[in-house]
Amino acid sequence: MTQTNTSPLLQSIASDLEIRPLNRKYFAAAAQHLDNLTKPVGSLGRLEELAKHIYALQSGKTPLSVKPALMYTVAADHGVARQGVSAYPQAVTRQMVENFLQGGGAINVLSRENDLALCLVDGGCVGGPFSPNGYLLDRRLGDGTEDFTQKPAMSRSQAIQGLRFGVELARDAALNGCQCLGVGEMGIGNTTSATAIFSAYLGFAPADITGPGSGIDKDKLKHKISLIEQAITLHSATIRSGDAIDILAALGGFEIAIMAGIMLGGAAEHLLILVDGFISTAAYVVARAIARDLSDYILLTHVSAEPGFKIIADDLKCKPLLDFGLRLGEGTGAALAFPLIKAATTLFNDMATFDSAGVSRAK
Amino acid sequence: MTQTNTSPLLQSIASDLEIRPLNRKYFAAAAQHLDNLTKPVGSLGRLEELAKHIYALQSGKTPLSVKPALMYTVAADHGVARQGVSAYPQAVTRQMVENFLQGGGAINVLSRENDLALCLVDGGCVGGPFSPNGYLLDRRLGDGTEDFTQKPAMSRSQAIQGLRFGVELARDAALNGCQCLGVGEMGIGNTTSATAIFSAYLGFAPADITGPGSGIDKDKLKHKISLIEQAITLHSATIRSGDAIDILAALGGFEIAIMAGIMLGGAAEHLLILVDGFISTAAYVVARAIARDLSDYILLTHVSAEPGFKIIADDLKCKPLLDFGLRLGEGTGAALAFPLIKAATTLFNDMATFDSAGVSRAK
Repeated sequence: MTQTNTSPLLQSIASDLEIRPLNRKYFAAAAQHLDNLTKPVGSLGRLEELAKHIYALQSGKTPLSVKPALMYTVAADHGVARQGVSAYPQAVTRQMVENFLQGGGAINVLSRENDLALCLVDGGCVGGPFSPNGYLLDRRLGDGTEDFTQKPAMSRSQAIQGLRFGVELARDAALNGCQCLGVGEMGIGNTTSATAIFSAYLGFAPADITGPGSGIDKDKLKHKISLIEQAITLHSATIRSGDAIDILAALGGFEIAIMAGIMLGGAAEHLLILVDGFISTAAYVVARAIARDLSDYILLTHVSAEPGFKIIADDLKCKPLLDFGLRLGEGTGAALAFPLIKAATTLFNDMATFDSAGVSRAK
Repeated sequence: MTQTNTSPLLQSIASDLEIRPLNRKYFAAAAQHLDNLTKPVGSLGRLEELAKHIYALQSGKTPLSVKPALMYTVAADHGVARQGVSAYPQAVTRQMVENFLQGGGAINVLSRENDLALCLVDGGCVGGPFSPNGYLLDRRLGDGTEDFTQKPAMSRSQAIQGLRFGVELARDAALNGCQCLGVGEMGIGNTTSATAIFSAYLGFAPADITGPGSGIDKDKLKHKISLIEQAITLHSATIRSGDAIDILAALGGFEIAIMAGIMLGGAAEHLLILVDGFISTAAYVVARAIARDLSDYILLTHVSAEPGFKIIADDLKCKPLLDFGLRLGEGTGAALAFPLIKAATTLFNDMATFDSAGVSRAK
């Protein structure tokens, strides 16, 4: 399904976009430093793994830093929402963006609390552009996607434009000195799109990974599964083609295209990418199909409560940081996990060594 | 094993010490508030559970707050360390306290990073009192405990004094406006004492829950298990008596007695208690045997990498917040988890409601 040589696809997004695997020598160097700190070897567990990862990602530059950090929360609407796949009316996407602009959403609270700048992006909410606002970027790819059970959600050129928007957003962040990007979303109906993406790119049967999203009953869940199956059948030739961008166009959302672009652009800039929940992970699956080595730059921050998530994370060989039963999206899991990642860098930077502190080593 | 009527034991520590179960009505009231916030019902998972817990603990007072928070890291030495149960020489307890005083330990870094005040307590390190220092409280119960494979680790009056010291430390914190207490420790050999405590209070066979602590090989692990079995046999009459304070005296450490006292005193003051890892959980098991309703006031903050920890946490019906493979102690897991708890309170306090934000509810 996924490409072995991804350069042509990457170059169709931006001619100078390059994502290289991390150099393994940095992991060994970081481990050597960690083993000199005043603690039993390995006793900081996952925090040591995070520090090694960031050290390699930042090419051995010290002190390690994941600040400043920026959260991009991308909102867009889905044509498939008209089929009744969500517990909420489609208007809620737009209403929630307004709520974010007022500072009242969970992602506002968590970004403030955990010291991430928050930037909202309109990827194409139904109802036209929002009034100009300093906290919201207009990157609209349309007025919501098409219903992908009937036709492709968007054109190939829209998908490429979304990826490009994302790459540019990541480059802007890097230009502003940003070290770490969180990626989250808002979009009524987007677990349906994400589930179709997992099915198409990873080969899962929709019935095995479809969940209640924002909270639907058993009958609606059956309806949701059958719609996804219908879409997978409708777009089976595209899926068989293995072209990661065409599959995105067939089944994706505007916010998913832009998020995938942010991840690609962020990795090219050597930023650490914090992937939020179910939808963000779908964007990661798209982006990874375009550039396999993206996996060296991302962290899955939490285990979404969406029932299919665990097998998807296993398939991606990722061990998410938190298991808090979150199923909100917006970037909330990524923002929640950020202090844990920051802690890993500060321990690496600031702890005393056995020699400097005059502490005896293990016998 | 544990008492049904705990008042006499509690009163032997402090005559006015009272720990009452939380009033369940507060959980329902908090849930009602959470369900009005702009998110699908329950979609913030564990964060919602935390907010309800803190709301009940603070008797419905809003805004919720866990700040200021204080970490008590209690250090003491263990007679059993002379039997070679640790990868490190006993002198490391004292050396690490000096390291903490210089600000170079992991707990210093994490407390600073995550906005907890850190207070060090000498519960009885070998080598006599430390030079007077504003960051270290002298609550010495002796110059290390006795070797509990030969005799009780301490006298009953030392155990009671340790519990009293802890209660006073918690009361001091409450007097200073503290809302949340972290409890951690340093003491070479103290996984041996903690494992003996789990065996004695909870009925586990030592072989089922003994682990490598700071890092010992297979032969030393066998030696450690046989020493714990020897101690359980030596003190079997005390264990059968079911007197929680006598068992503490037989098998405990000075830091464990003081930590148990901090938990009891903190609960009596309605503070949220953050239990760190393997040793802190042993202190919790002691304190819970003295006052069963203590369980309403504590959070296990992480799954210690010590192999027995998971079955112990299950036995205690606790689901720790983090699973990061930590096995350092000092309070590091509690300090690491603190931002997650703070986030739960801020979301509860600051998110918009459906009505205030004009967002439609689920259909």
